Amino acid sequence: MKVGILGAGQLAKMMALAAHPMHVQTLCLDPKADVCASYVTETRQGHYDDKNTIEQFASEVDFVTFENENIPAQTIGWIAAICPIAPSKDSLLCAQDRILEKNLFDALGIHTPNYRQIDSLSDLTQAVEALGLPALLKTRRFGYDGKGQYLIQEYSQISTAWESLGQENLILEAFIPFEFEVSQIIVRDKRGHIQYYPLTFNEHKNGILRISKAPHMNHDLETMAKNYCKKIAEHFNYVGALTVEFFVKNNQLIANEMAPRVHNSGHWTIEGSVTSQFENHIRAICHLPLGSCEPLGQIAMFNIIGQVPSREKILSIDNAHLHDYGKTAKPNRKVGHVTIQAIDASLFSQAFEAVNNALQG
Amino acid sequence: MKVGILGAGQLAKMMALAAHPMHVQTLCLDPKADVCASYVTETRQGHYDDKNTIEQFASEVDFVTFENENIPAQTIGWIAAICPIAPSKDSLLCAQDRILEKNLFDALGIHTPNYRQIDSLSDLTQAVEALGLPALLKTRRFGYDGKGQYLIQEYSQISTAWESLGQENLILEAFIPFEFEVSQIIVRDKRGHIQYYPLTFNEHKNGILRISKAPHMNHDLETMAKNYCKKIAEHFNYVGALTVEFFVKNNQLIANEMAPRVHNSGHWTIEGSVTSQFENHIRAICHLPLGSCEPLGQIAMFNIIGQVPSREKILSIDNAHLHDYGKTAKPNRKVGHVTIQAIDASLFSQAFEAVNNALQG
Repeated sequence: MKVGILGAGQLAKMMALAAHPMHVQTLCLDPKADVCASYVTETRQGHYDDKNTIEQFASEVDFVTFENENIPAQTIGWIAAICPIAPSKDSLLCAQDRILEKNLFDALGIHTPNYRQIDSLSDLTQAVEALGLPALLKTRRFGYDGKGQYLIQEYSQISTAWESLGQENLILEAFIPFEFEVSQIIVRDKRGHIQYYPLTFNEHKNGILRISKAPHMNHDLETMAKNYCKKIAEHFNYVGALTVEFFVKNNQLIANEMAPRVHNSGHWTIEGSVTSQFENHIRAICHLPLGSCEPLGQIAMFNIIGQVPSREKILSIDNAHLHDYGKTAKPNRKVGHVTIQAIDASLFSQAFEAVNNALQG
Repeated sequence: MKVGILGAGQLAKMMALAAHPMHVQTLCLDPKADVCASYVTETRQGHYDDKNTIEQFASEVDFVTFENENIPAQTIGWIAAICPIAPSKDSLLCAQDRILEKNLFDALGIHTPNYRQIDSLSDLTQAVEALGLPALLKTRRFGYDGKGQYLIQEYSQISTAWESLGQENLILEAFIPFEFEVSQIIVRDKRGHIQYYPLTFNEHKNGILRISKAPHMNHDLETMAKNYCKKIAEHFNYVGALTVEFFVKNNQLIANEMAPRVHNSGHWTIEGSVTSQFENHIRAICHLPLGSCEPLGQIAMFNIIGQVPSREKILSIDNAHLHDYGKTAKPNRKVGHVTIQAIDASLFSQAFEAVNNALQG
């Protein structure tokens, strides 16, 4: 059995590492030459809009999946004509466009910030009137890690915001003064069975995820999050891992965005749950039974941004696991992560402090 | 950082899978062409007695280790002249020869079955007189999974046993009517720090390990086993994972054999402990700090002998993890293993029964 993965970054690397023990082989396709999955799987360089490349790739594998949302719709079509691709095209297209995503949340009764589609400066002026300030102007497509966003705090910033984000295909969202952020990861198999990871608490800095902690013990929020994810997954007859990020305010969830794939806020599941999100995603897309998502004690994941510290520094911390993606150091780039997992609470606290210090020092 | 591994079988595959998250690269060298590590790491085909091949291999990596004991001493010498190799040559040579191994156990005060070196038929006759029957005649070198052994139960079998095992370089061991078998795995780093896995209970059938269970809760035996392993490791100034297999009789340990490498009875540590034997072995030989060996609840590992059942069958069992080595099916061949891990005792029992049934059915 062989899985084709569009993309060959760290998410593809972790999917391949999860597939290999089950003797599920992997082949990654990426437009870039220097990719971090290349150490652990067969990879190929090629562009997603090159039909020959895509058809050749699809013909060599049994199932196809992807590690990020930036896949053209026609590429999905070319693949689907040759072999199964999951998650579904509809879920991918929805996640690619903040308007479609918000429309879906609305249609399914999932709270989400008020929003307006913005195609002109006058749309924006009217939307600011309607939603008030502060408000977030965002590109509909291709935003990540806080990129493609402008926080409008005063009326005087409207035209600057409009110009800085390209003057087309934008969305204005009401700014939510949330208390914290959580994410819910679920995985759904071909027969419609769903497994739910515990709710994860997320801490961002400058728009980039820094720390995820699980399980986040809040029964009401978790029930709500699982129910929302189930609605989305069933709407798409979804197969694979699905993540929804939520703001939390007054003990209510407000959906921020969804990701039809394995997600950074689920990296803790590698050491911290019975079956990782990566293994479960592979199982799902290969039409295999899903594994348990039970957490193994308390877990935290710290993203390493910019540059990986020395291995010695991280590995000398009890219960710390280093994931070095093998990427070139660069400011604001996710180059690795550290997970700590412990069943004993005081051991967990010590490790948490130690990793936090090591990554700030 | 790059580790060279002599051998490219399942142990090398699991070492490579443990190395990759830390961005430790691997290069395996194996005399065979069709090797199961090839899906997860760079591999090369070459013979251990080919000096050019070995020197080229050693020059491309930072550290060398091995996945089995059948490495010629001169190969170790060629490598050591170019880059560090661990575990040490002395420990490897000792583990290659049952006489040296038993001599060491004796010298360190570690109980082991009575034994005699056998180089002639008259040696054997005299040894049978001295040790009594039943007794086990074994080849000194290259025995594994019950191969190279003859259980002599009556005097009339002496000459048949002598002839069937090649008539040279043999050892006769007193037969121990043991109650059960255990193994102790430890890992020692360059600075002499040791981490100890919990004692593992092992069940064999026809000389092949079938089931390992951990932690085996027996404080006295575990203390004794850890102490014995510490003595051996310190004797060799050992670096890496070390396994010693023991018979248990009357609550005493009787050392059977040692393995200067990762070991089949430690496969459970992948899902069942904070840091697997594979990751800790890689950390040790790369001069990195060791990780915790704490178990995560109750764990059992079942070897898959002969042929891997369908993935669906195994993965439909809660908390079961399938390791399919990707090897051709063959009677009595280890082609995979299944690990179950659970913190909840009744969940563990259910999974244990289910896997046991699935592998027998």
